[in-house]
Amino acid sequence: MKELKCLFLGFGNAARAFLRILADSESDLACTYGVRITITGIATRRRGRRLFPAGVTPRALHEHFAATGEFLDSVPFHGDATEFVSRCPADVVFEMTPLNVTSGEPAVSHVRAALASGKHAISANKGPLIFGFRRTRELAMEAGRRFLYETTVMDGAPVFNLVERCLPGCKVLGFTGVLNSTTNYILDCMAQGAEFDQALRTAQECGFAEADASLDLEGWDSACKTAALMNVWMNAEVSPAEIRRDGISGIDARTVRELRSKGISLRLVCRASVQDGRPVGEVVLLEVPEYSEWASVKGTSSLLTIRTDLMGDITVTEHDPTIQQTGYGLYSDLLRLLREEAENGTGR
Amino acid sequence: MKELKCLFLGFGNAARAFLRILADSESDLACTYGVRITITGIATRRRGRRLFPAGVTPRALHEHFAATGEFLDSVPFHGDATEFVSRCPADVVFEMTPLNVTSGEPAVSHVRAALASGKHAISANKGPLIFGFRRTRELAMEAGRRFLYETTVMDGAPVFNLVERCLPGCKVLGFTGVLNSTTNYILDCMAQGAEFDQALRTAQECGFAEADASLDLEGWDSACKTAALMNVWMNAEVSPAEIRRDGISGIDARTVRELRSKGISLRLVCRASVQDGRPVGEVVLLEVPEYSEWASVKGTSSLLTIRTDLMGDITVTEHDPTIQQTGYGLYSDLLRLLREEAENGTGR
Repeated sequence: MKELKCLFLGFGNAARAFLRILADSESDLACTYGVRITITGIATRRRGRRLFPAGVTPRALHEHFAATGEFLDSVPFHGDATEFVSRCPADVVFEMTPLNVTSGEPAVSHVRAALASGKHAISANKGPLIFGFRRTRELAMEAGRRFLYETTVMDGAPVFNLVERCLPGCKVLGFTGVLNSTTNYILDCMAQGAEFDQALRTAQECGFAEADASLDLEGWDSACKTAALMNVWMNAEVSPAEIRRDGISGIDARTVRELRSKGISLRLVCRASVQDGRPVGEVVLLEVPEYSEWASVKGTSSLLTIRTDLMGDITVTEHDPTIQQTGYGLYSDLLRLLREEAENGTGR
Repeated sequence: MKELKCLFLGFGNAARAFLRILADSESDLACTYGVRITITGIATRRRGRRLFPAGVTPRALHEHFAATGEFLDSVPFHGDATEFVSRCPADVVFEMTPLNVTSGEPAVSHVRAALASGKHAISANKGPLIFGFRRTRELAMEAGRRFLYETTVMDGAPVFNLVERCLPGCKVLGFTGVLNSTTNYILDCMAQGAEFDQALRTAQECGFAEADASLDLEGWDSACKTAALMNVWMNAEVSPAEIRRDGISGIDARTVRELRSKGISLRLVCRASVQDGRPVGEVVLLEVPEYSEWASVKGTSSLLTIRTDLMGDITVTEHDPTIQQTGYGLYSDLLRLLREEAENGTGR
């Protein structure tokens, strides 16, 4: 049985959902890949950087934390974040800290430190896709390590893997997506009669919107996703600030209702295409027929149409995901890594 | 430069679309995989079995056939179909003959002869998925050769590859799909006022339906697709005759129009789920709201929702495919094979 040591950066909802999947999969991983997962370190804002000198199994960590809110058998690490990533004994680093939309830090530095110290990096944070992505990808190639990020857009619904692994020989010419559930939810509430403030409050109460919802309402979240998809698929080098961006803040409820009475829904749409040989992306508030597939995206669901040269247009729709699907995205990246190692004998 | 020898069984529209893609990709294949494709044999109903003793490049074959309707520098093969597959020097056999819904033959024998003689098999024919699939898959394992079939359902839209390669660790619990464009087209024509016979004639004139449309109208095509997906994903062993099956033959135009006036569309739906621990599939004519994603599937488009344990429900939609997308499905299987050989050094 091979031990695979994992380092968690961040321990929020996504990390905990991932941990729960790991805890439930211990015997599967042993049977299928001959691997025993241990967690050797966790960094959190509240608890600081902790090492598990003996390594802790996902099940033991999950059960102890669920029961006590504390980490089992851990010791503090005295050093900064980069040292923690570099020096904690680990095979794979999971970057699960919150996104900083203006610099991508500290996630970019975390991922690069992981690769530089010979570790694979799996990121749930879009930062490394929208700031310095090309360089980070090169670093992974040079280090002979994997840099994976399936869960950054549409949770675990396989969009990056679909293009990379299932559409060989295809070129992505553009995409159109409804990728932000906060704005979707608020627009639908308003169409049914709510005022903007009331719709926002409801969204917050139902867990569709964060306390500070401005990143969603002003289109930053959509711009980040647009930039990430463009950088990975269209060889762009854009940051969210370079994406032309609509938002829905202060939108007039009467207008929304009038459109609805004419059979029209509003959707905040991420899209990109090639113009004059260059990839151009934008986030636009669009009027769409209410019987269109875009209008049918409700709640936490999202949809992405990928335009390709050889295969035409393909749409992937994710239905009513919860945090479990975000956790699955991290897990699917881990399994991809394990499968590649089993097949190629490369890697660690 | 490595030569990869290909044998074509069938030379209809899908085979010709695939050939055109191969002809356009010669330099890509040389640069990316160091491979030069040659075609060493073609079997067609009209021209019999032909060998190309020197091998012919896709471009030369395509250009000569487009100009003259004849094959270049070929000689007849004197022997039966199985001998042809076994003895024609080839690395990959492409099974592209028409489907036989009652036995799957001769496609099943073709694929097995290919594997038994040490060749990879890529099938556009659903036969090998719905008759003896489990045994054929075992034969491929034993031979250390690949048996791939992405284009059999939803053309080249990656559904089989999505589940196998992008949803690791997930179990498929069921699926629901709108997968037959002939019935879709006719139902929509009738909703707009046409009688059944008139709608069928229009479908035939526009190329949505074949001269003998009974396999589509009576749900056999949908039943074949349901059986194929169940056998591959749900470890079933069902043939189309075992699938409960609705059709649309003789459906009343007035009923269709009345439903439409109430905002309801009809769709012939393929679906499967696990019941009492066993996979059960059916083809059902369903009433769906006209603003649902199912009703939004028009023309040649199709849609498939895959229900999984860890990742929930994911839908893949293919928009307005032509025969080019069927050809791409075969091409994507070929590239998968080339990539795996490049990565693993296994195979030929």
